[in-house]
Formats: sequence, C-alpha cells, structure tokens
Amino acid sequence: MIRAAVVGYGNIGRFAVEAVNAAPDIELAGIVRRKAGDKEMFDLPVVEDASSLGKIDVALLCVPTRNVEETAISYLAKGISTVDSFDVHSEIPALRRKLDGAAKAGNAAAVLSAGWDPGSDSVIRALLEACAPKGITYTNFGPGMSMGHTVAAKGKDGVAGALSMTIPTGTGVHRRMVYVQLKPGANLEEVTALIKADPYFSNDETHVIAVPDIDALMDMGHGVSMTRKGVSGKTDNQMFEFRMQINNPALTSQVMVSCARAVVRQKPGGYTMIELPPVDFLPGERESWVAKLV
Amino acid sequence: MIRAAVVGYGNIGRFAVEAVNAAPDIELAGIVRRKAGDKEMFDLPVVEDASSLGKIDVALLCVPTRNVEETAISYLAKGISTVDSFDVHSEIPALRRKLDGAAKAGNAAAVLSAGWDPGSDSVIRALLEACAPKGITYTNFGPGMSMGHTVAAKGKDGVAGALSMTIPTGTGVHRRMVYVQLKPGANLEEVTALIKADPYFSNDETHVIAVPDIDALMDMGHGVSMTRKGVSGKTDNQMFEFRMQINNPALTSQVMVSCARAVVRQKPGGYTMIELPPVDFLPGERESWVAKLV
Repeated sequence: MIRAAVVGYGNIGRFAVEAVNAAPDIELAGIVRRKAGDKEMFDLPVVEDASSLGKIDVALLCVPTRNVEETAISYLAKGISTVDSFDVHSEIPALRRKLDGAAKAGNAAAVLSAGWDPGSDSVIRALLEACAPKGITYTNFGPGMSMGHTVAAKGKDGVAGALSMTIPTGTGVHRRMVYVQLKPGANLEEVTALIKADPYFSNDETHVIAVPDIDALMDMGHGVSMTRKGVSGKTDNQMFEFRMQINNPALTSQVMVSCARAVVRQKPGGYTMIELPPVDFLPGERESWVAKLV
Repeated sequence: MIRAAVVGYGNIGRFAVEAVNAAPDIELAGIVRRKAGDKEMFDLPVVEDASSLGKIDVALLCVPTRNVEETAISYLAKGISTVDSFDVHSEIPALRRKLDGAAKAGNAAAVLSAGWDPGSDSVIRALLEACAPKGITYTNFGPGMSMGHTVAAKGKDGVAGALSMTIPTGTGVHRRMVYVQLKPGANLEEVTALIKADPYFSNDETHVIAVPDIDALMDMGHGVSMTRKGVSGKTDNQMFEFRMQINNPALTSQVMVSCARAVVRQKPGGYTMIELPPVDFLPGERESWVAKLV
C-alpha cells in the first residue's frame, strides 16, 4: 500500500480524501491542515505537522497554487514525494526545474500540475501532436466556473458576490458570463464598467448580469472540448476531438491520486504528466493493463 | 538525426516514407522489400537486406501483422530497435514478452502495436481509467473499412471483390455493411448466406449489398468515438469522449514514426504505447514541450 497524506482541506482536499479512500492500493495516512482544531470531524488523524503521521510515501498538495512551491520543497526535503495541481501554465517550466532539483536532493519525486488542465488535457495535447505533427489544437473551456475570473469580479466595489462562467465560442475563444449579487445601493452600470475594464475581462466578450442570490447559481461542473485538425505525414484534414463534462474538484483530485501511484514509480526528479507513462497512473501490474487496454 | 529504415512497402510503408520525410529529426536510410526490383521508383535506396543501408537506429516494420514477430526478432538480434503496428489485440501480451526478451538480448528496444487501435486509442483508454477509475469505456469504430472483414467476405465463393464497412451503432456495437462485386452467374442470396455464417459476421447485424464495381467505393477514411462515463473518487457521472475522423494508413504510419523517437529514448526492452511518456513521441527537447503543451 502507498501511504498518502492529504495536505490542505479545501475543496480539492475533501475530494482527494474520497479518491484515496476509493483507491485499492493507497491508504490515507492523515490530513495535514494549518489548524487541526476540528479533528473530531474525521475518523482519521488531522495534524498540523506531517511528521506526526508516521512514514508517508506521498503528500497530495491540495493547497492554493501560490503555496505549492514552498510546500512541495518542504516535503521533498524530507524525502516525501509530492503531487500538486499547480495551474499557472506560464510558470510551470520554472516550477518544474525547482522541484526537479529539490526532489533529487531529497531522493524523492514530484509530479506537478496534475489536474485536468494542466494535467490530463496536456497528455491529450501531446498525443495529438504525435498523431498529427502539423496543425492547430484549440482548447475550449466550459461551460463552467472560472475561479480566477470569479475572484476578480468579486473584488469590485459594489459586488457582494460573483460567479464568472466561461462559455466556449469555439477556436479557443471564450465569452464571460458574469453574475453579480450587488451590495445595497450599488449600480449595475458602474459595476459592469469596473469588471469590463479589468484585464481578466477586457479582451473577452463579457456580459454582466445582476442576480438576487449568487449562491443559487453555484455548480462545480465544468467542461472541455479540445480539437485538432492537422497533418499526418503528408495527409491533411486529420480530425480529432476530446470532450468532457465533469465535476471540477472531483476530477482534479482523482488525477492527483492517480499520479500518487506514478510518483512512487519514478526515479528522483520533477515531472509533468506528459513525461510519465500512462500505465503508471493505474494500480497493479503493467501486464494486466496491457492486456486490458492496448 | 535518427536513421530509420522502412521495412515493407504496402499501404503503411508508403505513408511511413511520407511521415519520415516530414519529420525534422528522422532521416530515411532506405526501404527494405522482399523484391528490390523497382528501385528506380525512388530517389532512395531500396534493398532486400537492411545490412546494405549502413547504420540504422530504427526499423519501421510495415509488414503484415502475421510477419511482425519474426521480422522484429531478426532486427532486434542485430541491435536495431523496431516499431510495429501489430493489431491482434488478444495476442499483444505474448508478443510483448517475446519482443521484450529479444530486445534486451540485442541491447535494443521495441515499441509494439503502435498504430491508432491498438496505439493512440490505448493511451486515451489508459488516461480515462486514471481520470475515472470506475465506469465503462466504449470504443466505437467507423464508419470505415475493416480489413479483416473485407478479406473474409472476399474469400467467399462467388465474390469477385468486397468491402466491409464498420458502422458504429453505439456502446461498442457495430453493424457490418458488406458491399460485394459478384462473379458472373453468382447468386446474391447464396453469397449473403455464406458471409452471414462466417464467425467474422455471425454475431453482428450484417447487410450484404451487390454493387457493379467495388473499386468505386474504396476510401481509406476511418473513425473512432470512445466514450467513458465513470466515477472520480466518489463523484459519479463524469463524462468523457474522444472522436477522430482520419485517413487510416496515414495515421497508423505517423504514429509509428512518432514512436521511432520514443524507441531510441528507452532502455532495452519491449513496450506498448501506454508504457511510454507521451513527450517521448515528440521531436526536440522535453522542456520546450512542457512549456508549450502542459
């Protein structure tokens, strides 16, 4: 059995506990939180310091993206492998170099950006490049809630609550449907102007709509449609499409848990999912998966 | 540059030459055929024995599936890595064990069953298992020509030419639309009975249709729709779909050529595509693909 700690207990952490419990080959060593106060909530150890959990093979870092680097380095230094779902695409190469170094120094391994995008979508993009090396891949997100855009909208004067939905209009272009619950006395036209001026929204078609109760709109579903039209050898017009409609934190944490298997199978170093054999994500013996899936 | 020989020059071999020529990092050492007679067709060496091509890193085995094992073993014994598109699903585990042994003995590597199914579809199936470990994956083929069924239909008494189209009706169930060009005096009812009694067709809904000229129907396009509905952690109803509409031999040979990169990057042994990091299918440095795709 692989012993895993879930570090952080927000949305992703809660779903990660469920995914660990559903895995036949992984056991939950415990949950690590800054405040272990409500430990009576769980049948499992909730601690502030992972060292009180005994031997741990993998730490599943269910912390905010901005805390991933520091947290990962602290675990890797102790020789504990890590899996995270760091999601700032442009900063992944730099994080990979840092965690690669930290992992080798600690004789452990790190899988970074193990979610659905970045993550499983990245694997599809790599595979489609191999299938049709020339061409264009479009990744279309949604319909679903964008965390970053929602936080940006919520921060505006006059906004009590917000939800920014990402709506795909094809070829990687997105519409932003922003639902706002206004503070008493706030003016929708002014709020709309503030939101549309924000760099998060200024380049996209954005609609701002006032609603009386933002909580009534909340839904953790999300979707992707990725398309590639390209060339295999000299043959044009090869068409590929990958679609999914999923619960967002459930898929993110499931991918992290599947990567907990992969991370203990790698040599020390830092890896993204496109650098790992897909069979390593699966429990049990390679040969049975070759027989079942190939 | 990776030096590759194309072994066999049927449909797949012709497309493999195009894919090698389109690859920035692979050069064509030459073509190996049983009869090198028509060498004036090409600007490239066409030989009967690969040893006259100088140093070769990879042999792309574009030979019939039934000749793959013997051909692969002969190249691996010489220390030349191989890529094939062996496509009898049930026999892949046994072939993998044999080529694994032969590759290790020859200090080379073999990637087997590198086409689209088995092949790139297998990678998708593995990834979807990691995303939703519980659930059902359906692989729906077509519309497109089935080689095996076409050969079976063509072999019947009274049939001058045949084309068996695979039509997906969902949930992995397929209809067979069999077009036959009858020999003079042959009877459609009798031919239909022979075809429907064949184990290739007896379990599927099969329609047999007489046409005056079978060549007028030939088209190398094919398609796949794979769906998985499953459970991530404890969350049901996660929905995934992968679709493609492709030229069949062009994609098969492109996947083989992409695997020529992967095979030279592995330790000695035999591998299916689910056992290889997807980034290894792509030319150039890992880090640039991490930045572009992850």
